[in-house]
Amino acid sequence: MKVAVYLPAAEKIQWWVDMLKGLLPGWDVVSLEDVGNPDAVDYAVVWRPRSGDLARFPNLRAIVSIGAGIDHVLADAKLPAQVPIIRTVGSDLTQRMREYVALHVLRHHRDMPRQLRAQSERDWHAIVVPVAPRRTVGVMGLGNLGTAAAQTLAGLGFATRGWARSSKVIEGVDCHSGPEGFARFLDGCEILVNLLPLTDATRGIMDAALFERLPQGACVINCARGPHLVDDDLLAALDSGHIKQATLDVFHQEPLPQDHPFWTHPAITVTPHVASQIDAATGGRIIAANLLEFAKTGTCKDVADAARGY
Amino acid sequence: MKVAVYLPAAEKIQWWVDMLKGLLPGWDVVSLEDVGNPDAVDYAVVWRPRSGDLARFPNLRAIVSIGAGIDHVLADAKLPAQVPIIRTVGSDLTQRMREYVALHVLRHHRDMPRQLRAQSERDWHAIVVPVAPRRTVGVMGLGNLGTAAAQTLAGLGFATRGWARSSKVIEGVDCHSGPEGFARFLDGCEILVNLLPLTDATRGIMDAALFERLPQGACVINCARGPHLVDDDLLAALDSGHIKQATLDVFHQEPLPQDHPFWTHPAITVTPHVASQIDAATGGRIIAANLLEFAKTGTCKDVADAARGY
Repeated sequence: MKVAVYLPAAEKIQWWVDMLKGLLPGWDVVSLEDVGNPDAVDYAVVWRPRSGDLARFPNLRAIVSIGAGIDHVLADAKLPAQVPIIRTVGSDLTQRMREYVALHVLRHHRDMPRQLRAQSERDWHAIVVPVAPRRTVGVMGLGNLGTAAAQTLAGLGFATRGWARSSKVIEGVDCHSGPEGFARFLDGCEILVNLLPLTDATRGIMDAALFERLPQGACVINCARGPHLVDDDLLAALDSGHIKQATLDVFHQEPLPQDHPFWTHPAITVTPHVASQIDAATGGRIIAANLLEFAKTGTCKDVADAARGY
Repeated sequence: MKVAVYLPAAEKIQWWVDMLKGLLPGWDVVSLEDVGNPDAVDYAVVWRPRSGDLARFPNLRAIVSIGAGIDHVLADAKLPAQVPIIRTVGSDLTQRMREYVALHVLRHHRDMPRQLRAQSERDWHAIVVPVAPRRTVGVMGLGNLGTAAAQTLAGLGFATRGWARSSKVIEGVDCHSGPEGFARFLDGCEILVNLLPLTDATRGIMDAALFERLPQGACVINCARGPHLVDDDLLAALDSGHIKQATLDVFHQEPLPQDHPFWTHPAITVTPHVASQIDAATGGRIIAANLLEFAKTGTCKDVADAARGY
C-alpha cells in the first residue's frame, strides 16, 4: 500500500512519514511531494491539503484527516468526490477537550481574569460568584466531544444545557434541539461553549443575534472552528459590555495574524488551537489502526459523512 | 436563647445579626459588643474571635465557627475548655472547593500562566502537555473537602492520589496514609493540593523537605490554612526552579500584607481566601439550622473534635 503524507508545516512531514512507516510495516509511506507515479497512491494522510493536492491521485481509496474535523479537506473545491474521508478521533482527543472546556468554563465562572488583575494591584478583593449549580452553562454541538464536555460540566456541578441539530438524551444535561429549540437553549445561558461541526448551517452561527440572546455578562468559548464566529460581532458585543469575556482556540486564519485585534483585547483569551490538540504519537497510532482496518474491510468506524460535513 | 455575634470586619456584624434574627425567630441575636449581661449568652457565632472574647460568657453552651475550620477559635489561649465548637460546613462549601481545586489543578496542568504570557507576546505557541490520565495529582487531607476534591480530579481523568492521617478508601483514588505512606504519596506527584486541617502535626508540613520530595517542575496549591506552608521554603523552591508554580489561597496573615513577596512573584497566583468562601446567605441558613438542632438535642452532627483540632 502506498500512502502520501501532507501537512502545511513542511518540517513536520518527515516526522509523520517516519512514524507511520514504523507503524505500518511493509507499507510505502512517502511525502506527498515525493510520490512518483500518482496512480500508485492508495491513501493520503493530510492536514489542510492545498486545493488540487488530492485530485492528483486517481486511485485514492481513502483520505485520512489528521484531526477530528474534515472541513479542512472539504474546503478543496477539486476534492475527488466519493473518496471516503477518515477522521482521527480517540479517547485522548476527547479527554483533552474535556480538560480544556472544564478549565475555561471554570476560569470564566470564577472570574480568574479579574482575580489576576486584583493580584497585580495587590488588592485583597474577594470575587464571590454563584455556586456552580446556580450557574447555567451550555454546549452547542453534542457529538463525541460536545457530549463528553457537557457530561464533564454536569459532573462539576454546573446547571448544564446542550443543543444539537437532532434531539439527544444525556443524563444530567438539559438537551435542546433544532432551530425551534435554539432560543430556549440560549436564554439565560451564562457561559456558552461551541463544539459544533463546521457546516454551511453552522458557519457564522456565533453572530450578533446569538450574542444578543445570551444574558448580560455572558461569556463565550469557541473551541470548534474559527468560521463559526463572526469576529466583528464578537468585538462589538464585548465592547458594548453585553458579553463579558471570550476564550478562543480557533480562528478564521491560523496562526492568528499578528495584527488581529483578538491578540490584545483585554476581554479575550487566545489559545493556539490546543483545546484538543492531537498528540502526534497518539494520533499516529490511531491513524495506522484505521488504515489497517480500512485496508482489510473497506471501511472503518471513523469514516465521516462528507455530505453532512462531519 | 441569646446569641452573640463577632467578626473582625465590623461592617459585617450587623448584617449577620439581622440575618440570624430572621432565621431564628424568638431568639435574641446581638453583636458581641452589645450583649449586656454576659451570663445571659447561650451561643457565640464567631470568625477569628479575639483572645478572651469567649471567656467572658460563663454559661456558653456552644461556639459556632463561621467556616469549616476551628483553628481560628482554638487559637485563643483563653478559650473556655469543654464548650462544644460547631463547624459550618455544607454542600455549598464542598461544591465551591471542588470548583477551586479543579480550576487551579487544570490551570497548572495546561500551564495557563505560560499560555497567557505567549498571548501577551502575540506568540502562536502551542503548549503540549500530557493528557490528564498521564498526570499524577495528589490531595493531602481526605476529610469532606479533600475527599470531594480528589473524587473531582479523578472524575476529570487525572491519575489521582490521596493522603490522610488514617487510612481511607476512595474509588478511583490511590490512597496513602500515615507518616509511613507520605513519601510514597509525594514521589512523582506533579500537582499537589493541600486540604489538611491545621493541627500541631500539620503546621509547616509544606516545607523544604516536602518540596524536595516532589518531582522537578511540580506545582503546589494551598487551599487549607496559611501556617501549613513555610513561606521562605516555597520561595526558595520556586527560585531554584524545582517547584514550577504555586497557587495560594490562604496565608499566615490575612489579608496578605502589602509588602509580602507572594503578591508579585511571577510563579505565584494569590487568591484572597475564596476557595470555598462561605456565601453568607447559605452560611447563615446552615448556622441557624445547627443552632436549632443543638438547642433541641444538645448536639449536632457538625460539632468538631477540639482535641483533634477539626
